[in-house]
Amino acid sequence: MCAEQQPGQVRPGGRTARNREAVCRATLLELAERGYAALTVENVAERAGVHKTTVYRRWGGVHGLVVDSLQFAIDDDWQPDLSGTVEENLLDHARVALDAFLDAEIGPTHTAVVAAAFQSTEAIEAVHAFFADRFGRAASIITTAIENGELPPETDSIAVIRAVMAPIYFRLFISREGVSDGDLQQAVQAAVASARAGVFSSFDQDGERS
Amino acid sequence: MCAEQQPGQVRPGGRTARNREAVCRATLLELAERGYAALTVENVAERAGVHKTTVYRRWGGVHGLVVDSLQFAIDDDWQPDLSGTVEENLLDHARVALDAFLDAEIGPTHTAVVAAAFQSTEAIEAVHAFFADRFGRAASIITTAIENGELPPETDSIAVIRAVMAPIYFRLFISREGVSDGDLQQAVQAAVASARAGVFSSFDQDGERS
Repeated sequence: MCAEQQPGQVRPGGRTARNREAVCRATLLELAERGYAALTVENVAERAGVHKTTVYRRWGGVHGLVVDSLQFAIDDDWQPDLSGTVEENLLDHARVALDAFLDAEIGPTHTAVVAAAFQSTEAIEAVHAFFADRFGRAASIITTAIENGELPPETDSIAVIRAVMAPIYFRLFISREGVSDGDLQQAVQAAVASARAGVFSSFDQDGERS
Repeated sequence: MCAEQQPGQVRPGGRTARNREAVCRATLLELAERGYAALTVENVAERAGVHKTTVYRRWGGVHGLVVDSLQFAIDDDWQPDLSGTVEENLLDHARVALDAFLDAEIGPTHTAVVAAAFQSTEAIEAVHAFFADRFGRAASIITTAIENGELPPETDSIAVIRAVMAPIYFRLFISREGVSDGDLQQAVQAAVASARAGVFSSFDQDGERS
């Protein structure tokens, strides 16, 4: 989830960029391990090896740390693979997303983002930004499928991506049932079958749809 | 979510039943307002108007309070309406479930159940019990639809119910987008279209499916 630091990328930002990375990673780890309620500037500063006055000066406090760290966490260059059928591309996307949550290093920070939204309105804004970003990038899987004639032309791209991901998040974070690769395949098949049946076609006969 | 107390139901349990209701309601409100990490026997006892030694004697501590309160919260006599088409019955079910989360009185306790699972393994067990109970009751919508010839005979009932509910929970608690009645209708249409396409048919060619 976090962009890998390449050798040539350190110098342009220098100490400021290194401090941001250290502070954002420390904030995400604190969120993952102790939760939003226990987040303090002091703990983040100590964990990051940065003086707390630096943290206060740049991030203002806990609010600023959360917002910037969640932005840092989504700041990578992931793009969906568009080389297969719509089912293959969606399954690849679902596997990448699930792997991120199950990964020992970055999984806890993803989980912390979801968990923090239960306790903080600023985290809710960050979660909106996270999904707008992820769903927006993955939507090219659907627009490509429409161009290829695999899905109806009026299909709502974001609705299909959401339909693939919702059962995965539901199993991980709501019902806590665990997620198998068969579950990912079923989620993809269901989303594609629904799209082909016209369920996700843009429509305006219902005033409540946005 | 909590069973309505009928006049004739109080006496059989007497003080014990009244104490349980007061303590469980207090625990759920504490969970909803302050979260699992801040839950204490002292706060629950004070809120319930019960002596803390009574709470320690009967529930043991925070663990016992959480487990029993979540059991109390799911202990009602809800049964799905089976009088309409499969789409109508599923939409009714989805509306009842969403109303429970949005209700000013019982919504916070439902939310507390979901949130507590981020912080407590005993809450995860309670969440499993909650969904096993709810999905199990709602499954009769699907078995009735199969009997009526509305869905393929080999349809996995729980998979269809989960498919209806997952996007609703996802919008409420993960992406935090809000849920309109049009979203409920779309979730029902998608689940039924997928079931009719055979996506939720029981199958065993994939060793990873349970």
